[in-house]
Amino acid sequence: MLKQPANKYRSFPPVALHDRTWPDTIITQPPIWLSTDLRDGNQALIEPMNGEQKLQMFNLLVQIGFKEIEVAFPSASQTDFDFVRHLIEQNLIPDDVTIQVLTPAREALIRRTFESLRGAKRAIVHLYNATAPVFRRVVFGLDRPGTINLAVTAAQLFNELAAEQPDTNWRFQYSPEVFTSTELDFAREICNAVLEVWQPAPERKAIINLPATVEVSTPNIFADQVEWMHRHLTMRDNVILSVHPHNDRGCAIAAAELAQMAGADRVEGCLFGNGERTGNVDLVTLALNLYTQGVAPGLDFSQINHVARLVEDCTQLPIHPRHLYVGDLVFTAFSGSHQDAIKKGFSAQSSDDIWEVPYLPLDPADVGRTYESVIRVNSQSGKGGIAFLLERDYNLVLPRRLQIEFSRMVQQAVDTHGQEMAAADLWKLFEQEYLQAVSPIKYLAHHLEEVDSQQTISVTLERDGQPATLQGQGNGPIDAFLQALNLDIRVDHYEEHSLNQGSDAAAIAYVEVTSDCISGSLHGVGIHSNIVTASLLAILSGVNRVLSHRR
Amino acid sequence: MLKQPANKYRSFPPVALHDRTWPDTIITQPPIWLSTDLRDGNQALIEPMNGEQKLQMFNLLVQIGFKEIEVAFPSASQTDFDFVRHLIEQNLIPDDVTIQVLTPAREALIRRTFESLRGAKRAIVHLYNATAPVFRRVVFGLDRPGTINLAVTAAQLFNELAAEQPDTNWRFQYSPEVFTSTELDFAREICNAVLEVWQPAPERKAIINLPATVEVSTPNIFADQVEWMHRHLTMRDNVILSVHPHNDRGCAIAAAELAQMAGADRVEGCLFGNGERTGNVDLVTLALNLYTQGVAPGLDFSQINHVARLVEDCTQLPIHPRHLYVGDLVFTAFSGSHQDAIKKGFSAQSSDDIWEVPYLPLDPADVGRTYESVIRVNSQSGKGGIAFLLERDYNLVLPRRLQIEFSRMVQQAVDTHGQEMAAADLWKLFEQEYLQAVSPIKYLAHHLEEVDSQQTISVTLERDGQPATLQGQGNGPIDAFLQALNLDIRVDHYEEHSLNQGSDAAAIAYVEVTSDCISGSLHGVGIHSNIVTASLLAILSGVNRVLSHRR
Repeated sequence: MLKQPANKYRSFPPVALHDRTWPDTIITQPPIWLSTDLRDGNQALIEPMNGEQKLQMFNLLVQIGFKEIEVAFPSASQTDFDFVRHLIEQNLIPDDVTIQVLTPAREALIRRTFESLRGAKRAIVHLYNATAPVFRRVVFGLDRPGTINLAVTAAQLFNELAAEQPDTNWRFQYSPEVFTSTELDFAREICNAVLEVWQPAPERKAIINLPATVEVSTPNIFADQVEWMHRHLTMRDNVILSVHPHNDRGCAIAAAELAQMAGADRVEGCLFGNGERTGNVDLVTLALNLYTQGVAPGLDFSQINHVARLVEDCTQLPIHPRHLYVGDLVFTAFSGSHQDAIKKGFSAQSSDDIWEVPYLPLDPADVGRTYESVIRVNSQSGKGGIAFLLERDYNLVLPRRLQIEFSRMVQQAVDTHGQEMAAADLWKLFEQEYLQAVSPIKYLAHHLEEVDSQQTISVTLERDGQPATLQGQGNGPIDAFLQALNLDIRVDHYEEHSLNQGSDAAAIAYVEVTSDCISGSLHGVGIHSNIVTASLLAILSGVNRVLSHRR
Repeated sequence: MLKQPANKYRSFPPVALHDRTWPDTIITQPPIWLSTDLRDGNQALIEPMNGEQKLQMFNLLVQIGFKEIEVAFPSASQTDFDFVRHLIEQNLIPDDVTIQVLTPAREALIRRTFESLRGAKRAIVHLYNATAPVFRRVVFGLDRPGTINLAVTAAQLFNELAAEQPDTNWRFQYSPEVFTSTELDFAREICNAVLEVWQPAPERKAIINLPATVEVSTPNIFADQVEWMHRHLTMRDNVILSVHPHNDRGCAIAAAELAQMAGADRVEGCLFGNGERTGNVDLVTLALNLYTQGVAPGLDFSQINHVARLVEDCTQLPIHPRHLYVGDLVFTAFSGSHQDAIKKGFSAQSSDDIWEVPYLPLDPADVGRTYESVIRVNSQSGKGGIAFLLERDYNLVLPRRLQIEFSRMVQQAVDTHGQEMAAADLWKLFEQEYLQAVSPIKYLAHHLEEVDSQQTISVTLERDGQPATLQGQGNGPIDAFLQALNLDIRVDHYEEHSLNQGSDAAAIAYVEVTSDCISGSLHGVGIHSNIVTASLLAILSGVNRVLSHRR
């Protein structure tokens, strides 16, 4: 049994922000997006990307529509340094895109970082130092003033080095590291001290980034922390307030969304939530969450499968089948009641309507995925899903009671084999059960004549291998055929529709037959380009099924 | 580019609950847990579990500590019906565990559901019908009174059928399906109508379950909805208020946590978030999130890898490497600064303390995982991680400046090969670089004599294949050896420590040498059971490295 955690862990202290406003707020515009796939994402890979993969990822991010991209930690590895140089020297950065690089608050590393950016048109230089108590105490042995001094000295060096390269349009960003576990008043104090050095202006805003480097509380507490900073930060009008949520409690998406409601202007994250440990916040999900609320995210995921495959190639990590919006199983429904509702929802949905298909918060077509996989039939599925697949792939519009009858056979089949059935499997079973029900009585030919509005039929059949010609009459071909057959069988219901377009189109006829020999009813189905032949085949299919059920 | 979503989607309407109390609440006790792995989880699998897998899963859930387990949808498939019969007939349900089964509000299916439970000691029968507007309109063509009538009629049948099997201890549960998109007043009305029929009592509480069958809003709105129901539900004291969050916006964990703060007593979900589409809420994460806040969850995940492998076997779905608490990469750190902080955190942590290791919100040992994988070295790693691995696996305590020197070589190696390095790879590189630096000068033997506190040394070396014996003297062996060598090389720093325990233990010596021929310094390392020999080897290693750097 797990140890008693009360002695080892403690609950996170809440923020006493009783006049918080974020819970009454709604997000009406997208944040400024910063992709850190090439930095935070990359440093969390078992095998970090090589130069070629980095370039591929960079181009993908540009294509998606990111305007701010953290491309490297230039002082940490030669690969990273070289990649920044390559982007600049080969002129690979579009005019509306700003690259960002990260540096710790250490002189040599800051110098090397600015060195990597020589010749850049625009750049965001991102400074961080550790501000949380456990870091001050255990990792750096610094008190509060010492920690502030570290940040301020580094910030001053930023000013100096930027002045030495005046042709670059510089922007500065500061992160108090592990903001989430830093005392709020100290986080404010150190951010304000850095802003004091940088003196941002409306046309040259500084970015204050609040990293949930480790997620340590429920997301409402993070939102309280962000709202507190939003309200208490100096020079707020000259500051872009940014968040950088990680996912250690599984609430990164919620934290990013509530933080925006609390005043954050900008979100840092990765595609599909790559990043150290449990990952950074997933920018794809954030963007598409906005999209489903009627807000254009400004990022293009209309071909999400393409993005997913490229990211998997670069990261060498799989995307889970249940991953939001992109996983293989996300636009699927296995359960009968869900399938039934989705089927009806699709029918009721017109292209001008607000999207409202049960169980599908997003139209799969909007992200370049098809409906194909929506309905998948296993032992938990019902008639709705089966009917959907047969209609979509084979143009069959099964009568409701036939749906129920056939779904029992499908369930039996999947219960026995314990596997999923694709549309082709369903069609095979349907053919076998209804269209190949040609024994004991097989249709060979028929001849119709109408005399005084009475229908006369002459049918040639083969019964147990013996051919026979029968005559009958009635008020129509079905009636006449039943009379000719002269069996204890009635047709209770008849439906027929064409299977495709054009004059040579085949028709499919469905009949529901009853008999004193069976309890309930059974269905028969026939397909033929002649609608009369199709109905005769359907009747014989029903008759044969009754006869074999009786035996 | 993605279409303009404003014409196709709309934002979710908020709840006007301005006096909400949940944001000031903290969770201090676990919810009642209901695992629906065998029902909601199972029906979302490509291949639903067979009877044997179901039993394996059931036993696992019992072992973990679940007291309420939804085991089947008995009217939906024969496999499910048979599984319930098997559990009851084989007496496989422990006395403190209650099984739950799900049924739609249809007479035949309710009857079959009660039939499946014949002979059960205790059971929760879970009724649902669709209450959301789009379902009423598109799927069922029912108005509000018609929808209530469906639920009430079914609830009455529950009373009747339960009375027919008086030996079973019955409990009833009702879910207004897709609660999240049902008008709140209507959700209250239909729940109250069902409660009116069931007449729960304090000793026989009814469960009202609020399913976020599809997640449609930010989790704060779900919390508002739950708090509204919590406040407005009739007979609240006789009701267990339950939630059933799905993960369509990636906020199921947050939704479940905020819902508990808002008044929910019970949470339904699955292990590792299995379930239709993006999954049900992950009960493992919820439980361990509580655990890290000092609250005992009442579920045992102290051997989480065992649980994970068994669940993967039953579901045939992988668990992602970044999955919370269990993924392969969750207790890893690749970045140098993270590794450094973790290394220091481990050293500072004593077993009685509150857990406070940077970047690790949970002690991996608490879930049966080891520290082994915490530090992994790639091109983004720094000296901290490298030193950690060499100390853990090879007992090396590298001097700080040697850590820096060696980490550059490691980075070069991983930059070149683009791969992760394990401890053994690091050791190999270290050996090659330092211990095998025996050219041009190789140590063969030495002889020491102390005369009047002056140390005299005679050393036999091989230089470029030629043996030579040198004499020197100084205030100690190192000094004397340097004099004997008579090269332009100084030892600035020396450290030595034993590598293992006992009198035959080997010692490792580290020296930092400088020379006018090189800028900065270089290190040399030697290992020998004689501490003097080790130090001479270290010096020669340093000398050889200087000589080869000079060339």
